Amino acid sequence: MRIAMLAPIAWRTPPRQYGPWELVTSLLTEALVARGIHVTLFATRDSVTSATLDAIVPASYGEDPSIDAKVWEYRHLAHLFAQASQFDLIHNQADFPAHAFAPLVATPVVTTVHGFSSERILPMYKPFEDRVHFVAISAADRHPKLRYAATIHHGIDVDSFLFDPAGSERLLFFGRIHPDKGAAEAIAAARSARCGLDMFGLVQDHDYHAQRIVPQLDATQIRFHGLVGGEQRLRALGSARALLHLINFAEPFGLSVVEAMASGTPVIATRRGSMPELIEDGLNGFLVDTPAEAAAAVERAGELDRAAVRQSVARKFSVERMADDYVALYRSILAA
Amino acid sequence: MRIAMLAPIAWRTPPRQYGPWELVTSLLTEALVARGIHVTLFATRDSVTSATLDAIVPASYGEDPSIDAKVWEYRHLAHLFAQASQFDLIHNQADFPAHAFAPLVATPVVTTVHGFSSERILPMYKPFEDRVHFVAISAADRHPKLRYAATIHHGIDVDSFLFDPAGSERLLFFGRIHPDKGAAEAIAAARSARCGLDMFGLVQDHDYHAQRIVPQLDATQIRFHGLVGGEQRLRALGSARALLHLINFAEPFGLSVVEAMASGTPVIATRRGSMPELIEDGLNGFLVDTPAEAAAAVERAGELDRAAVRQSVARKFSVERMADDYVALYRSILAA
Repeated sequence: MRIAMLAPIAWRTPPRQYGPWELVTSLLTEALVARGIHVTLFATRDSVTSATLDAIVPASYGEDPSIDAKVWEYRHLAHLFAQASQFDLIHNQADFPAHAFAPLVATPVVTTVHGFSSERILPMYKPFEDRVHFVAISAADRHPKLRYAATIHHGIDVDSFLFDPAGSERLLFFGRIHPDKGAAEAIAAARSARCGLDMFGLVQDHDYHAQRIVPQLDATQIRFHGLVGGEQRLRALGSARALLHLINFAEPFGLSVVEAMASGTPVIATRRGSMPELIEDGLNGFLVDTPAEAAAAVERAGELDRAAVRQSVARKFSVERMADDYVALYRSILAA
Repeated sequence: MRIAMLAPIAWRTPPRQYGPWELVTSLLTEALVARGIHVTLFATRDSVTSATLDAIVPASYGEDPSIDAKVWEYRHLAHLFAQASQFDLIHNQADFPAHAFAPLVATPVVTTVHGFSSERILPMYKPFEDRVHFVAISAADRHPKLRYAATIHHGIDVDSFLFDPAGSERLLFFGRIHPDKGAAEAIAAARSARCGLDMFGLVQDHDYHAQRIVPQLDATQIRFHGLVGGEQRLRALGSARALLHLINFAEPFGLSVVEAMASGTPVIATRRGSMPELIEDGLNGFLVDTPAEAAAAVERAGELDRAAVRQSVARKFSVERMADDYVALYRSILAA
């Protein structure tokens, strides 16, 4: 089976720091190669992979301001689709632009829909559903008007996360500093529960950060550490009583949720979007609807078996399971 | 001959006001239809044409903020290229995105290069020169690294412009209010020549307008009239001693230059870009290098034969000549 894997070019694949779409693309690509599948990864030239890298884009537009995003996105797509006949299947991880090319090639196209940025992009999905096999990343993220080939949850490399059997008495916020992600709600919940809170993430909404987060910070109880990587990131994910994921939007999937759980840290999340698919209430975390429920859940988080929390991810959100699901989908498409 | 004409979707075709690419697309389309050529125009749904209109895009993104430019540009391209085999030739007036699709279809593609916005777009031109026939709109605008099929100057509907045999003692500025277009230089030249100046155009650079133009305006000598259309526009183009086109960039073509000349108004222009191709010095205007030369040219503009000025456009920049040139190019491509 020869797969052309189309990565986004916002970041390197895998990303150096932030870049969830590129991260999932990398995890799946490496797992497919490990299964002996021939994968050609179309990604930025500085990408790192054990697949064959076929890169026309000099660098990511998120990291190199000399890269014109529009010019190079078209070039990236043109480069892959001109070779479409060399592949059994094209797996598109880079949103709707590839759909415009799908009707012009005989090779089947699979698109992992990493999230609907808005209803405004539906005109590049709906008319192409006869030519493109859409994959939802959660049941919650399935658009009611769209036909899907499958729902495949993301998977992570569970073994790469350090299991911390003890955690700590402090709470954790891990995500973009943006109203969607509930950073202010996490602070309120920590104060209400009289717990410390360690916050990590990219500041995406600077006004929100300055107005809602910075005034709440202090040297001991509520601390902000910015974006961290490597071992510091792994330790942060495990050394907490619970991750507070009090989101204000229907999140299509939560990579940090399963990463925290893989580290042994249970997750307290708003009952929205994909959260009920990721969290088994009372086993690896709690689903809450109100600030009072969040505070109560902080109390109960210490009762959970942290080994069972990790095990829940190993069972349902491993990269192996994700790769199995995609290979099964590829096979069913190629058999049809 | 069945031609698919791809218009940009920034504006309606033809544009209601500003929109030079859409204007040229419309002029050529109508002239081809008048020659009995079957043209299908791919443009916004509100476009007006005597060709067959095949429109998937509800409205222009320049006029309707609900239209996501990226989504609908891809949809527009996908819509045309899915039907490529129905046409003998695709004529692309909408910059580089169409090039990505050209290698996937057997139908030849012609691109009128309305101007290189920057060197950064070259990666979507150079690699496609074996699949796309590029047309320069002036010799000056030919990129030295690119292979062209032809240089075809734009043409206008000369008869639609009112010939004003007398003009006036006032000068004219007609173009976007932007440093490129030399609005401030026009004011300086008018002051130096002790002439009145009437200025027309879209304010594109608001800071420049506020700082360099507005403080110079008065009720009599230097007047700004904004963007005008219809009869007011036609009268403005003809009722002047000369058009001041003291540009600060290598303009690929100047539609307002030939429109003013079609109205009998000679043009005083900086010797840059395509200006030496449009202006026959001493016949329909003057090419200048310095402010002193511009002021001297204002003196001499009254000596020119305004009928000869109009005649120079009828001879070289008519829509009929433009259509002849494109038909000859289409024929040579289809014969090859």
